[in-house]
Amino acid sequence: MPYKYDYVENAVGRMIPREIDGRTLKPFRGAFKDNGGGRKAAVPVPVSKPGQNKVLKSIKKAIQACGLRDGMTISFHHHLRDGDGVINMVVDTIAEMGIRDITLAPTALFPVHEPLIGHIKNGVIGNIQGSMNGPVGRFVSHGGLPTVAILRTHGGRVRAIEDGDLHIDVAFIAAPCADDYGNANGVYGPSACGPLAYSYVDAMYADKVVVITDNMIPYPCVPYSIPSTHVDYVVQVPSIGDPEKIVSGTTRITRSPTRLLIAQYAANFIINSGYFKDGFSFQTGAGGISLAITKFLGEEMERQGIKARFINGGITKFAVDMFRKGLVEVLYDGQVFDTASIQSFRDDLKHVETPMSMYANIHSKGCLVNRQDIGFLGATEVDLDFNVNVNTHSDGLLLHGIGGHTDVAAGAGLCMIVIPSYRKRLPIIRERVTTVTTPGETIDVIVTERGISINPRRKDLIDRFKNSALPIKPIHHLKKEVENITGIPEPPRLKDRIVALIEYRDGTIIDVVREVAKTDE
Amino acid sequence: MPYKYDYVENAVGRMIPREIDGRTLKPFRGAFKDNGGGRKAAVPVPVSKPGQNKVLKSIKKAIQACGLRDGMTISFHHHLRDGDGVINMVVDTIAEMGIRDITLAPTALFPVHEPLIGHIKNGVIGNIQGSMNGPVGRFVSHGGLPTVAILRTHGGRVRAIEDGDLHIDVAFIAAPCADDYGNANGVYGPSACGPLAYSYVDAMYADKVVVITDNMIPYPCVPYSIPSTHVDYVVQVPSIGDPEKIVSGTTRITRSPTRLLIAQYAANFIINSGYFKDGFSFQTGAGGISLAITKFLGEEMERQGIKARFINGGITKFAVDMFRKGLVEVLYDGQVFDTASIQSFRDDLKHVETPMSMYANIHSKGCLVNRQDIGFLGATEVDLDFNVNVNTHSDGLLLHGIGGHTDVAAGAGLCMIVIPSYRKRLPIIRERVTTVTTPGETIDVIVTERGISINPRRKDLIDRFKNSALPIKPIHHLKKEVENITGIPEPPRLKDRIVALIEYRDGTIIDVVREVAKTDE
Repeated sequence: MPYKYDYVENAVGRMIPREIDGRTLKPFRGAFKDNGGGRKAAVPVPVSKPGQNKVLKSIKKAIQACGLRDGMTISFHHHLRDGDGVINMVVDTIAEMGIRDITLAPTALFPVHEPLIGHIKNGVIGNIQGSMNGPVGRFVSHGGLPTVAILRTHGGRVRAIEDGDLHIDVAFIAAPCADDYGNANGVYGPSACGPLAYSYVDAMYADKVVVITDNMIPYPCVPYSIPSTHVDYVVQVPSIGDPEKIVSGTTRITRSPTRLLIAQYAANFIINSGYFKDGFSFQTGAGGISLAITKFLGEEMERQGIKARFINGGITKFAVDMFRKGLVEVLYDGQVFDTASIQSFRDDLKHVETPMSMYANIHSKGCLVNRQDIGFLGATEVDLDFNVNVNTHSDGLLLHGIGGHTDVAAGAGLCMIVIPSYRKRLPIIRERVTTVTTPGETIDVIVTERGISINPRRKDLIDRFKNSALPIKPIHHLKKEVENITGIPEPPRLKDRIVALIEYRDGTIIDVVREVAKTDE
Repeated sequence: MPYKYDYVENAVGRMIPREIDGRTLKPFRGAFKDNGGGRKAAVPVPVSKPGQNKVLKSIKKAIQACGLRDGMTISFHHHLRDGDGVINMVVDTIAEMGIRDITLAPTALFPVHEPLIGHIKNGVIGNIQGSMNGPVGRFVSHGGLPTVAILRTHGGRVRAIEDGDLHIDVAFIAAPCADDYGNANGVYGPSACGPLAYSYVDAMYADKVVVITDNMIPYPCVPYSIPSTHVDYVVQVPSIGDPEKIVSGTTRITRSPTRLLIAQYAANFIINSGYFKDGFSFQTGAGGISLAITKFLGEEMERQGIKARFINGGITKFAVDMFRKGLVEVLYDGQVFDTASIQSFRDDLKHVETPMSMYANIHSKGCLVNRQDIGFLGATEVDLDFNVNVNTHSDGLLLHGIGGHTDVAAGAGLCMIVIPSYRKRLPIIRERVTTVTTPGETIDVIVTERGISINPRRKDLIDRFKNSALPIKPIHHLKKEVENITGIPEPPRLKDRIVALIEYRDGTIIDVVREVAKTDE
């Protein structure tokens, strides 16, 4: 089957089809070209009567009550991560009921969701719009999905839902704690996960909303992350997931000397960047390098008597420790990664939930990422234009979601990519990244164990670090140095067919992902 | 000027014009006839860019930036009650700027807002949609407003805004605490008022939102009742109000023997009603009788070892004391009435804010009033059909808003009206109330110091109290008894012209308010 597309070049030099799957695409025009306008989606007008019973005995009954049928779109959150039991449970039920051609719009899929591949093959799932970490991504890469998948950032997904680009017919919300009216939180019960921030927009905009819980408490469930005003049905199940895999007992700092060196470079860069001062703010994640930077920054803050105004999480025990010591005044939290963070989120008044619209929606009147001073982020590849790939590997396989990467890069005053210069003999710095996830114009610095490259757009930083002892060098030097060790890798074995779109946070298309030939092809 | 209307009779027997001020009216059809349907209003798509500055130097600059012009609608909350300084400040500025024919859509006006009368006279204010407590209501009663005012319940106002019936061009939100990005709360600062629950819907649905604060703190203001995602501009002013009049230092229980007797009857009725059991819930207010009932219930709960699951507030120190004693597990809070309650609202994890949509929106998927067992409410009049008037006095003057009265009555399992049988020689129980605010089908019991009347619809309660020692009697007996003391008052001196509509919570019209002749007419 030949795949022909009518292309137009976008602002990062990628060729984007004008149309795909009957959908007209808008090519990426630059990170800050969007100006809003128009009106958001209008949601249905429901009615609330006294005596209303929302509790249904099974997921099947909830699916029936919602009127789910062929071709509709359903959504899920990924707060239960690789411990999630709900997506498979719901899709299995949909399959049993004979419903087909469903668009799946999760915030993210994990290895635990590998069984969905069977449901793609049997026609139950017709499209996926959401992050695919691992097996489902690999399957889509090899052309397994009959349609083109769409990947969005955390902020971009909210935007798409609010703007009506992604209409959700039924949202299924896994809830570690809920009452019979649908008020739900993530802080109590065996499957506690912290905030339910990813699902808030689904609750606000989906036509029908089903809360699925393994911990039903007497009304009212307080606090609530999901308000009963937006929930149609509640289903109790024996278990929504595997607590062992929902959060780790503890998150650990990297022990790799290479990664510790990267973290040390990054921390030193930050400390000398001008951004490190009383009242500053930064974003942390759960990655080993990110945790090490957080730790190093915390130590320096204590030494210098500097306090941060807020940390924008993913929150871990390391951020909570700094908060408890008084080094940070506020924790903003979209997700937590360990049990200590759940406790703090539950109990501390200045540790608050950030629904994704507040976190990163470009179509809001102001989002959190735009107010943060520093973000340190990962990558699978970066290129000479500072474009960053977080979705595909150099072999072209689509194995990761975007998360908040692109959002933070656009918003943060100082956006750093902190990465080892090569992985498994594959260089990270490329002539052109395999996939552009985040445009180079929003990336300020690349930090590797072999050197630090500053984006030429940031003349101020280049000047500031002119006489620095840090190993600062132009990115093409860094690239050359690494290639001397690794060589230049083979290009990925890509086919013509486009299997996924990488949507920028404003709804334009920044890149496409092509089918990867199987090794036996 | 002759006023002719083309009438249709509604379900409580009131004659409602088919159309007024070019607006087609839907007559009230019964409390539970509404079934939702259609779509809510679609809000504008804004954009959030890094570096955006929301802080403007004056209210005038904010009004200009919002593009406010003749004929538009502006809104305010009433959390600052009779201490509010913001409404007058903003309308004065609008007047100075020469803008005219503004529709004012506050949640409520108080005596402090009497200067608005001048702005009605000079054409700055063309219409009012909101509660008018005191002088502005009196002025409107006498025909001072050139158009017909609309009064809505707390839940009904949210519904109207969300459904697009009341479109707000610019919402001005007085904030006791805010940051430069518009995150705002009511718990810190000299003008602290507790929640900002009335304004939440305004922030969500208004085209433009301006936060006005006298207490700007460094970003981020946490917790936030109003999220920065929905705020366009922030203005700092020396003072948003008079703290002495925003909340009372303490709320006081009535000392009137008559009112204490009513409270005692009401408490005894509740205790024997079947609703008083472990896990029950009720709503309190700040009125003297309501506080006394709360106190009596609390004492009995302690005696019997009964715990309430939640109190739905207006919260006072009395509710907080019960909460602290462990007699109540959760406090739901739309507004607070004293400083002790602000502290509890600020610090206690199980004392949470209820935006008005969660409190009482019939066009939600489930609101709080529908889950509460008991509500005790006031009235200016009740009638033989148990219809309740809270808006006008027997002289026809429109002096009070609806508040949550109608919402609670529709939702609560047991809705009691607790009132003295007469006031200033005017009987409270009338053949027909002057104005129907709340339909009799939603009222269960009338409690006065001279006896208790149960709505004949509640055969279960009539049976239950058959042999009660409480002075239970049919409502026409009670009426007769009171009239033997007071006589039957003169009918109000009403003119033909309709000056206000009483909108039921579903958007239908339950009654109209007519112009009252001045004493010299």
